[in-house]
Amino acid sequence: MDRSAFPSSLKDYGEILPYGDASTSTIRRKLLKDLDAAFSACNIQDGAMLSFHHHLRNGDAVLNMVLAVAARRGLKDLQIAASSLFPVHEPLVEHIRRGTVTGISAGFISGPVAEAISRGELEKTAILRTHGGRARAIEDGELSIDVAFVAAPAADSCGNLSGSFGPRAFGTMGYPKSDVLAARHVVAVTDTLMPFPLAQIEIDQQSVDWVVEVDRIGDASGILSGITKPTTEPIGLEIAQRTADVIEASGLLVPGFSLQNGAGGISIATASVLAKRMTQLGVKGSFASGGITDFHVQMLENNLFESLLDVQCFDLSAVQSYIRNPRHLGMSASVYANPNQRGSVVDMLDAVVLGAAEIDVDFNVNVTTRADGKIMGGSGGHADTADGAKLTIITTRLNAAGFPKIVEKVGTITTPGKTVDVLVTEAGIAVNPQRDDLVERLHSFGIKLCNIEDLQQKAAAGSQRQPCHPNEGRIVAISQYRDGTVTDLIRQV
Amino acid sequence: MDRSAFPSSLKDYGEILPYGDASTSTIRRKLLKDLDAAFSACNIQDGAMLSFHHHLRNGDAVLNMVLAVAARRGLKDLQIAASSLFPVHEPLVEHIRRGTVTGISAGFISGPVAEAISRGELEKTAILRTHGGRARAIEDGELSIDVAFVAAPAADSCGNLSGSFGPRAFGTMGYPKSDVLAARHVVAVTDTLMPFPLAQIEIDQQSVDWVVEVDRIGDASGILSGITKPTTEPIGLEIAQRTADVIEASGLLVPGFSLQNGAGGISIATASVLAKRMTQLGVKGSFASGGITDFHVQMLENNLFESLLDVQCFDLSAVQSYIRNPRHLGMSASVYANPNQRGSVVDMLDAVVLGAAEIDVDFNVNVTTRADGKIMGGSGGHADTADGAKLTIITTRLNAAGFPKIVEKVGTITTPGKTVDVLVTEAGIAVNPQRDDLVERLHSFGIKLCNIEDLQQKAAAGSQRQPCHPNEGRIVAISQYRDGTVTDLIRQV
Repeated sequence: MDRSAFPSSLKDYGEILPYGDASTSTIRRKLLKDLDAAFSACNIQDGAMLSFHHHLRNGDAVLNMVLAVAARRGLKDLQIAASSLFPVHEPLVEHIRRGTVTGISAGFISGPVAEAISRGELEKTAILRTHGGRARAIEDGELSIDVAFVAAPAADSCGNLSGSFGPRAFGTMGYPKSDVLAARHVVAVTDTLMPFPLAQIEIDQQSVDWVVEVDRIGDASGILSGITKPTTEPIGLEIAQRTADVIEASGLLVPGFSLQNGAGGISIATASVLAKRMTQLGVKGSFASGGITDFHVQMLENNLFESLLDVQCFDLSAVQSYIRNPRHLGMSASVYANPNQRGSVVDMLDAVVLGAAEIDVDFNVNVTTRADGKIMGGSGGHADTADGAKLTIITTRLNAAGFPKIVEKVGTITTPGKTVDVLVTEAGIAVNPQRDDLVERLHSFGIKLCNIEDLQQKAAAGSQRQPCHPNEGRIVAISQYRDGTVTDLIRQV
Repeated sequence: MDRSAFPSSLKDYGEILPYGDASTSTIRRKLLKDLDAAFSACNIQDGAMLSFHHHLRNGDAVLNMVLAVAARRGLKDLQIAASSLFPVHEPLVEHIRRGTVTGISAGFISGPVAEAISRGELEKTAILRTHGGRARAIEDGELSIDVAFVAAPAADSCGNLSGSFGPRAFGTMGYPKSDVLAARHVVAVTDTLMPFPLAQIEIDQQSVDWVVEVDRIGDASGILSGITKPTTEPIGLEIAQRTADVIEASGLLVPGFSLQNGAGGISIATASVLAKRMTQLGVKGSFASGGITDFHVQMLENNLFESLLDVQCFDLSAVQSYIRNPRHLGMSASVYANPNQRGSVVDMLDAVVLGAAEIDVDFNVNVTTRADGKIMGGSGGHADTADGAKLTIITTRLNAAGFPKIVEKVGTITTPGKTVDVLVTEAGIAVNPQRDDLVERLHSFGIKLCNIEDLQQKAAAGSQRQPCHPNEGRIVAISQYRDGTVTDLIRQV
C-alpha cells in the first residue's frame, strides 16, 4: 500500500496506518498460576496504588492475601484504595509498620487498621471518602489506580465475573465497577472458575486483564456483619415509631415513595413500622436502595416497593433475591451515589434514615470517630444519601456508654448539618431551622418538636463522660466530602 | 477550615479543597422536550461528531430525525459515526449534498448513502471500520464523539435504558456501549418512557445526559432485514453440506464447540446441518455468537449450545429469547470483537462461516464493494471473526449475476487472506496453503480439495461480465482493519 495515496482529509480521523503484518490473533491467556504471578504480570512496583472492594465485608480474604504477597516481594510504599476496611484486615497493620503500605483511602474503616491510623502509625494522611465520592474520584482521575484486585465469587478464563455463583456468592458487585474501568491493570481473584461464557455477568472480560484462582476468596458468613434485624429494645422501638411518624407527616409517604435505611436495628425497625403503614394506606413505593437486607427483600416480595436498587447485599437472603428476582436490581457505586452531573440514585431518594455516633447543634453528624477520638467508620453512603434525599432523618439515643450523642460540636464532621433535616431521639424530635416548611407539616400532623439545643442539654445532663475531641496534634486522616472538598480533619489520639 | 493545616502528604492525593458551599443536590432533570432542545443542551456546533447505532437496522428512524433537526438549525460539516447505515438512511444523501454532513464512518453502509459516497458526493473520505475496530477506535480516542444519540426502546427519566420493553424492543444493546462511555454528551431517544427505576437495564443513568421522548424510534419490522432462514436452493444446500463436512473434519466439532455464522441462507443452512450432526454425535457446544437469529435460539433451546452471546438481535424471535432466557447473553461490541489486549469473544471462536462478494487467489475477501465498484457493505464483524476464529470458512457460489466471485484480485480487501482458512464452493473446496495441518485433516476425512486457482479459472469461464476495479480516481473511502491499519482504498465510480 502506498501511503502517499492517502487523501489529506484522512488526517481528520487521526493517524491511519496501512495494513501490514497485523498477525492473526491468538487467544489472550488470562489465567495466572498465583497472585505472585499477577504482581509480575502487572509489574507492581514500590509506591503502586492498589484497589480493593468490600463485598465480602468482614469475611474478605483477598486484601490480606494480596498484601502478604506484596510483603514477601519486599515491596514498599504501597497505597491502598479500598472501598471499606474491616476488623478482618488486621494484618494490614503489620504491613503499615513495615513500610509495605504507607497510604490508605477508603469509604469506611473499622477495627485494628482504624486504630493504627488514629495512633499515627500510617505514614501518609489517610483519606476517608464517601461511597459516591470514591466513584467520583476514580472517574475524575483524582484517585489513580495502578492495579484493581477484584474478589469474584465466580469467573471464567476470559475474565467475565459474576457474584451469582460459587460458595462465596455475594450478589451485586457495585463497588469495583468504577475501579475496573479506570485501573491500569485489573486482576480478578476467584475460587470458582466456570466454563466460558459465564452467565449473569457483572463485570465483563473487556475490563479484566488477569484471573487468579485461589482456594477461598473469603468467608461468606462474614457478609452478615452487624445487626440486620429490627431492634426489640423499647427505646429503639419508640424512636422507630416517631421516625415513621415524621416520614408520614412529611407528605412523602405516597405512591412512588422511595426509601433508604441503614442496617442498624432502629433503621430496620423504622422500615418495619413504615411497611405496616404502607400496607394500611395502600401505598406502593418506587424503590428502596443502598445496602440491601432480608427486610428489604420481604418488602419487595410483599409488593411494597416496585424495585430494590442494590449496591451491596448485606445478607445471604439479599444475595438469593438478587440472583432470582429481576426487580432486585444491581447498581454501581457510581450510579448509587456519584455526585457528578449525570445524577445518582441518592438524588432520587425521598427519605433516608441514618444513624449517628454524634450529632451537634448545627445538625452536623459524625459517623467517623468515636467519643475517644479514634476512627471507627466513615461516611460510606451516609453523606451521599443525606445530601441527595428530600428528607434526611438522623435517629439516635441521647446517650451511649455514658457519653452524650447530641453535642455542641461533633468530633468529626462526616455529614454537614445543612444536609440533615430532622433528628429523632427518645427525648424528642428536632427539625433543622432551615426546614421551616417541614416544621409546619409536622405541627399540623400533631408532632411535638423541640430545639436541638434542648436535646443537647438533656444529653449532657445524662452523661457521665465527656468525649475527647483533639484539636491539635498530627493530622492522621481527612474526611472528604462527596464532591472532593474536605469536611474535617482527624487528629492523632 | 484552615487549609494551611493540611499535611503535605495530602498532595499525593491531588488537590483537595476544603468543604465550603457545596449545596444540597437537586435532582438532575434529564427529560428534554424535543431533539431541538437536545442540540441546545449539548451545544452542538458545526463540525461536531455525532454517533448512532443500528440495532433497529433498516427500521431505524432516529438518525434521520436527528439530522433533520441539524439541517433545520443550519448546522454544517457534521461528522457521522454510525455503527451501520442502511437504505432507510437515504435522507442522509440530501444532508451530504447540502454540506450538513461532510464525514461518515461506519461498520457497514448499504443503499443510497453508499452509492452517494461511491459517486464522490461526500466531502471527506469515508472510513469503513470493523465492528470491533469501531469499539477500539472509540476506546482509544481515535474516534472522538461529541454527542452519542442512542435509540432506546425504553428509558426512565434518569436515563436508564433497556432494549427489553416497548413496542420497538430490539433486545441486546451491544453497539452503543462504547459510544456512551466515551462521548462528551449522550442523548437517549425513546418512545417508551417508564417509571424509575427501569428493569433489565442495558445502559445505566451514569452514562446518559439527556432523554428525549419521540413518537416512534422506528419500525421494529425493519430489524428483520435480509434472509434469516436456511436456503432451500440446491447449490446453496450443497455448499452448506460441504461446509459442515469441513468443520467436522477439522476436529473442532467436539464438546465445547463454538460457532458464528452469518444471517445469510447458506450460513444458516450450514448451522442446520451442524445441528443435526451435533445431535447425532452427542456434541454440546459452548456458544454461538454475533448477530443472533431464530435459528440460534432453536439451537440453544434444543440444548446444542450452552449459551448465546448476542451483540444484536437479528429477528424478533431472538429479541424474545434475549428477554426471557438467562443463557441468551448480551455483549457489547467491544466484548464481541475489540482487538485490544483484553481479548474478545471472536478470539474464542472455533469456527466462523462467512460469505463473500468476491474472494481472490490469495484468499482475500471483499464484502465492501460490488462488481461495479460501488460500496455495498463493509466488514461489520467479518474481518474480526475471520481473525479471531480457529477455522474461518468462506462460502460462495462461483458466479453471481454473470460476474465471477472467485477472482485474481478482489476489488476491495475487507478481510485479509491470511485470516481465511477454507473456501467452499459448489465446484470444490480450497484450503489456504498456510494451513497444511488442515489439508491433512481434510484429506484423512476423505474430503477432496482443489487449488483456489482452479476455482478462479472455473469462475472466470462461467462469467459473462468482468468486475470493475477502479485503480485510479478519487479515494472516497478507506477500509480500516480492526487494529486501525488500512486494508484497502476505495475509489470513486
